[in-house]
Amino acid sequence: MPSTLNLMPVPANIQPGTGQLVIDQLFTVAVGGAKDARLDRGVPRFLDELSRQTGMPLNNQLADSAKATLLIRCESGGRKVQELGEDESYTLEVSPARATLTAPNPLGLLHGLQTFLQLVEPTPAGFAVPVVTIKDEPRFAWRGLLIDVSRHFIPLAVLKRNLDGMAAVKMNVLHWHLSDDEGFRVESKRLPKLHELGSEGQYYTQAEIRDFLAYARDRGIRVVPEFDMPGHSRSWVAAYPELASLPGPYKAGRMANADTVMDPTRDGTYKFLDKFIGEMAALFPDAYFHIGGDEVNNKPWDSSPKIQEFIRARGMKNNRDLQAYFNQRLLKIVGKHGKIMMGWDEVLHPDLPKTVLVQSWRGQESLAAAARQGYRGLLSFGYYLDLMWPASRHYAVDPMAGAAASLSPEEAKRILGGEACMWAEYITPETIDSRVWPRLAAIGERFWSPQAVKDPGSMYQRLDEVSWRLGWLGLTHESNYVPMLRRLAGAEDIRALRILAEAVEPTKDYTRSEVFPQPPVKSVSLNRLVDAARPESAVAHRFAELVEKYIQSGYQDSAAEGQMRSWLVRWQGNHANLNPLLERSFLLAEDEPLSEDLATLATAGLQALDSIGRKQTLPEAWRTEQLAVVERAMKPRANLLVMVAPSIQKLIEATPRP
Amino acid sequence: MPSTLNLMPVPANIQPGTGQLVIDQLFTVAVGGAKDARLDRGVPRFLDELSRQTGMPLNNQLADSAKATLLIRCESGGRKVQELGEDESYTLEVSPARATLTAPNPLGLLHGLQTFLQLVEPTPAGFAVPVVTIKDEPRFAWRGLLIDVSRHFIPLAVLKRNLDGMAAVKMNVLHWHLSDDEGFRVESKRLPKLHELGSEGQYYTQAEIRDFLAYARDRGIRVVPEFDMPGHSRSWVAAYPELASLPGPYKAGRMANADTVMDPTRDGTYKFLDKFIGEMAALFPDAYFHIGGDEVNNKPWDSSPKIQEFIRARGMKNNRDLQAYFNQRLLKIVGKHGKIMMGWDEVLHPDLPKTVLVQSWRGQESLAAAARQGYRGLLSFGYYLDLMWPASRHYAVDPMAGAAASLSPEEAKRILGGEACMWAEYITPETIDSRVWPRLAAIGERFWSPQAVKDPGSMYQRLDEVSWRLGWLGLTHESNYVPMLRRLAGAEDIRALRILAEAVEPTKDYTRSEVFPQPPVKSVSLNRLVDAARPESAVAHRFAELVEKYIQSGYQDSAAEGQMRSWLVRWQGNHANLNPLLERSFLLAEDEPLSEDLATLATAGLQALDSIGRKQTLPEAWRTEQLAVVERAMKPRANLLVMVAPSIQKLIEATPRP
Repeated sequence: MPSTLNLMPVPANIQPGTGQLVIDQLFTVAVGGAKDARLDRGVPRFLDELSRQTGMPLNNQLADSAKATLLIRCESGGRKVQELGEDESYTLEVSPARATLTAPNPLGLLHGLQTFLQLVEPTPAGFAVPVVTIKDEPRFAWRGLLIDVSRHFIPLAVLKRNLDGMAAVKMNVLHWHLSDDEGFRVESKRLPKLHELGSEGQYYTQAEIRDFLAYARDRGIRVVPEFDMPGHSRSWVAAYPELASLPGPYKAGRMANADTVMDPTRDGTYKFLDKFIGEMAALFPDAYFHIGGDEVNNKPWDSSPKIQEFIRARGMKNNRDLQAYFNQRLLKIVGKHGKIMMGWDEVLHPDLPKTVLVQSWRGQESLAAAARQGYRGLLSFGYYLDLMWPASRHYAVDPMAGAAASLSPEEAKRILGGEACMWAEYITPETIDSRVWPRLAAIGERFWSPQAVKDPGSMYQRLDEVSWRLGWLGLTHESNYVPMLRRLAGAEDIRALRILAEAVEPTKDYTRSEVFPQPPVKSVSLNRLVDAARPESAVAHRFAELVEKYIQSGYQDSAAEGQMRSWLVRWQGNHANLNPLLERSFLLAEDEPLSEDLATLATAGLQALDSIGRKQTLPEAWRTEQLAVVERAMKPRANLLVMVAPSIQKLIEATPRP
Repeated sequence: MPSTLNLMPVPANIQPGTGQLVIDQLFTVAVGGAKDARLDRGVPRFLDELSRQTGMPLNNQLADSAKATLLIRCESGGRKVQELGEDESYTLEVSPARATLTAPNPLGLLHGLQTFLQLVEPTPAGFAVPVVTIKDEPRFAWRGLLIDVSRHFIPLAVLKRNLDGMAAVKMNVLHWHLSDDEGFRVESKRLPKLHELGSEGQYYTQAEIRDFLAYARDRGIRVVPEFDMPGHSRSWVAAYPELASLPGPYKAGRMANADTVMDPTRDGTYKFLDKFIGEMAALFPDAYFHIGGDEVNNKPWDSSPKIQEFIRARGMKNNRDLQAYFNQRLLKIVGKHGKIMMGWDEVLHPDLPKTVLVQSWRGQESLAAAARQGYRGLLSFGYYLDLMWPASRHYAVDPMAGAAASLSPEEAKRILGGEACMWAEYITPETIDSRVWPRLAAIGERFWSPQAVKDPGSMYQRLDEVSWRLGWLGLTHESNYVPMLRRLAGAEDIRALRILAEAVEPTKDYTRSEVFPQPPVKSVSLNRLVDAARPESAVAHRFAELVEKYIQSGYQDSAAEGQMRSWLVRWQGNHANLNPLLERSFLLAEDEPLSEDLATLATAGLQALDSIGRKQTLPEAWRTEQLAVVERAMKPRANLLVMVAPSIQKLIEATPRP
């Protein structure tokens, strides 16, 4: 692949050529072949995006195929409802005179148009696309993103811009986690108390949902709804307490009472679900219907004599069997309404038929086991965006690696792809984009590109490019950053705060805790430095590379040393600059120890460089003291980690010893 | 005024107190007094803005007046259609326990809520508003912004966010320049060819306009439509050539044929205008109707024997009399449809009655003359945002200064206020916000605050604060900057480009010229460095202050010298860093000489500092050479000026001479 092609995901096959196709204001598109309404809307949208990206007004009228700059042609129309496994391949041929994009199905054309947009760059001779032939198709048919809209409600405008982002990186499933303990987010006309009492007023109407589904379909994205049951159901039983295993009352919302579980022993439960699923099956056209099924809290079942008696009477061994019983009855209802049932790992039970699609949050082991048993599955383990991992760590997770690598070809085919998950404990409409993007693009590449595409260096280089281009779609992962820092500071001049913010990262995995002093309020405000800080510190990354380079050079690389020193001097002086803000804003007070440690570490780093350069030893007590600061800096405070600490640790450890 | 109050515009009267009112998630509002639908919508919008600004979820329900944090009370409802001169005063009293906002009219409450939002800042004890009593009212009743949507079409979503910005700085008139040579932007049901043939498809439907007017009314903003006639009318005659003074055909759009003028001698013209104005008078509820009347091109009238004969036959002296005749007939039509006529300077003619409102683009002299003759007027001279002046220059222009200062009290009352003008030759939906904001806030303050409020230092300090706060309303003057630079570079890393961009400013006044090589296309792309660069370089401003400080200190201020050196070193090295981008992107090629001159000037500045510091003379030839570079740098190239050049010139001139 020529390094000039900043494509993400990397196409299956690229044949570079010589020269380029200039894109100017005379650029036009012609459409031939099969008709599809998605193209009728998709081509003007493409022109609009090209116009935004280049800042050039473009003619929105279709051109004659003999004259067009880009000729697109579809061999046949797509399915009425987008299906798993529809052909998504395309061929894009660019010559210096024109470009041709062909595909068997409109889905491929939509993907090819995104590739074309990524190829447009300014050159000395104008905006241009390099001469190239690309034959592309996805590795996996299911390339999803789960968005939880229950724990924090996410408005449709925000979801829409995320669909735009997904389409840009060729992802094709939005898994919409629509209900959980905290909120029930869909209007039900048959069971209206669900949204009336379960949502605190924050839900989508059915008309809004239909519009949203059309928006997704236009972008080649299927929408799979999830209604989590029998656990994670407090918002349901807040509306219909008779569904619960234990008597209520229950309340939806954050910070209310604990997890609840539906009562699987009552026939009324299934009647209710039949009515509900019937309504939702009609609203959501996709063939798949996700029933959740994860993390069923055992306590309510254990504490209910009636339920324990039911288990005994039916000859079940335990709660797990009871859940399998529930799932089997649910399966019949879901099937009756024409849908294929999907659930999380826990739904796996020998009694369940092989049609069920299993989504694994537990790992490749569990996924491979399911595939061996004949179930089709998706991997989500390793792709949880809320864990704040670096993109490279997600990128290294492959659905076909680990236990899955030893599957037979037949079994391997059962692994349909994967889904990234954006759980919503700590996101708001303001911060969600920065938690999803740009990291999702790396996961999207994992699902689309050949397995051999896995160099993290190349990935990061292309991720940087794709990230700012995603801004043209209205995604706010870049644009919301400075405003959030200014809110924290209550001031325009945030230079010192920015230096701290760019040296830290939010704490990883499930270690975030809310210790922030607040009056007794409904919900925690997500307006702190941890919410503004990026999941991955580019500065820490770059500094680590410099340290590595310097050490590798046997401490001879003076350019690397100079750059390290320049960073260290900046960090060393930053605490004094930041202090007035830390003292003034209650939002920043908790960050004071981090700022101080950054300065201390920087001083240690500079001392270490001096010591290395002059080959002078430093006292052992110095080393012990500095390493204690390193250790402290890598423990969460204010839910943040000082990410440059491990690199400074390396410098400290590299100092000559007596 | 305590320096902690970052209010813009500065209120008429501030009584600071001690302590503060904490704003937390329990914040609530109660509304008492007269009912007004604008408040029913305005209070939730206020809560929404407060929530966005603080990042705290807030309860959207109104509270009991005994318990609310903020109690607002309106003495009476406003007029059905907002009127010029309605009482806009308000009183805001903040105690540590609660705040009370009262006003005689809903308009005052809307202003007071904006003041409250500007007062909210993070403090050590949480978000808070300082204890204070503010009694506020505007100096002028007419505080407007003209937006030209003809030369470049501006979508309603963009206009709406600008209305939000206007409301935030208490401006109350949008002057909507809806037609000009380039485009006719309103749907006419009676004369549909106007929008069909005059707009190239870019116009607002009447339904959209009604929605927009309601949006403006909700924010206390009147909307005055302008349909420019008899000149600036090419888009009209493209649809109805019989209106023109000379036979057509004509075409709307940019870069088509020249200015055209309506034929004032035909009765058909007035029949047409009666029909049209009747329709528009019903669509736009405001009492004022702007007929333009500016810059009538004499050629079409001069070249028409029929028109010259008409002038002679009626005993008129010249074309000016003919325009007065046109205006008098127009006045009757406008009056018949219940509106007060407004026009630009040129409508002034002894034959015109005193009811006409005159908008002066020519200057205070012209405005004062009109006031002396008994006409009411507005000042726009000095407030043209497209001239790319610094905020301080607009701020220094006062409607009551110059010739207006000597008016009698009676005459002075005829000056109703002023309007900033955003003409649209060189703006797009992407760049308009950065041309309007934040500078408009300084003009808004000129129109609202007491005349004595005029210190530019205080203005700039508050402007910096208000600028980033305006971002919460969705204005893109800040957020579009980096994406535009990245487009120019075609790359993520724009550090070097940013250093150049922040040292330059777009050329001033009407000196912009389009020399950019382009294929024969319909319109020029506004995607160059001049379009991204800010109208006012904060860096040049700061550097100039440093130079001033250094010179004032007798070259002793070593802190200032150190900071200057740090900038100069950065600029000196920047050309080498920027060069790869300049060579790669056709969009940047034209900026190469500027980048090179910046580096040369920086070297000269460093040499000058050395010379001054060491009291060593430099050869006269050096001085001559460097001053030539300064001169070149202050001449427009790529429509940009190197704004740090005059400060470097001062350093060069300060070097000791033999």
